[in-house]
Amino acid sequence: MSVFDAIKNRRSIREFTSQPIPQELLHQIITAGTWAPSGLNNQPWRFVLLSERTIKEGMASLTHYSHIVLQAPYLIVVYLDTREMYDPVKDHQSAGACIQNMLLMAHSLGLGAVWLGQILKNKDKVNALLGVENVFDLMAVLAIGHPQHKTQQSHRKKLTEFIIKEIGGF
Amino acid sequence: MSVFDAIKNRRSIREFTSQPIPQELLHQIITAGTWAPSGLNNQPWRFVLLSERTIKEGMASLTHYSHIVLQAPYLIVVYLDTREMYDPVKDHQSAGACIQNMLLMAHSLGLGAVWLGQILKNKDKVNALLGVENVFDLMAVLAIGHPQHKTQQSHRKKLTEFIIKEIGGF
Repeated sequence: MSVFDAIKNRRSIREFTSQPIPQELLHQIITAGTWAPSGLNNQPWRFVLLSERTIKEGMASLTHYSHIVLQAPYLIVVYLDTREMYDPVKDHQSAGACIQNMLLMAHSLGLGAVWLGQILKNKDKVNALLGVENVFDLMAVLAIGHPQHKTQQSHRKKLTEFIIKEIGGF
Repeated sequence: MSVFDAIKNRRSIREFTSQPIPQELLHQIITAGTWAPSGLNNQPWRFVLLSERTIKEGMASLTHYSHIVLQAPYLIVVYLDTREMYDPVKDHQSAGACIQNMLLMAHSLGLGAVWLGQILKNKDKVNALLGVENVFDLMAVLAIGHPQHKTQQSHRKKLTEFIIKEIGGF
């Protein structure tokens, strides 16, 4: 799978089979996340890996997307360690780069994943449920598993709508 | 090049040859950026593509990293269109995902790039120089070109230092 194909054909997967994923693949996905760039190479990302049913039900109760959380066999809960942060905008960007690495890695392994952000409105409750100190700031939850199907579609604007201007010769 | 290899072996490249890059490759890099996920699929990223010498010198005067900006044959100036934003943290994360796609894409094409953030302290001056309205919020500048070398090293903490806890069986 080429990098461009992975980037272009990755979709948000919201329906999963119950088939398990070896721990080493989950760790490879997280490792891919940690190879994201970060300002001053501060590597501020931290993770909770969750598969336990009761806690997952608790997570489901904290988001509109409870059906996705319940069906996903694994959740990767993504944090920033606020003690390592140096600039909120740049650290949040770096969290996004880390998450994108993990989504691409999951896709390239034939797995499916979706980036869940709506749960951030309950970030303090998530930390209490997971027993995680508030020095860790919730960035996203990734639901991961084997995709039930690969029919998900997406679309983007035309390239010209994204380019404000080109200055110089190309 | 596998997705994992691209993610792990990509380095920040700060020294470039003067060899030009076809416009279509620069557009492919930007296209890769736009296939990042965004909340509500709001696709808030916008770009200025810059190669013109005098304006590039102006950009160089606005950052400590002027030598990188001057040597890079191309700059991709990354913005968020604030009219499309819906949540600052999530939109900044999405900008990071977009930037990471572009860095991976450049690497997979054999090109080199570096993510420059220090210039954000002069974001209003950058917009004035480029003739870009302040409705566009500067996120980063990517310097891109053919790498002069591929000897750049980087390092990451051990995986165990990133994982706060694992809850459930794996």
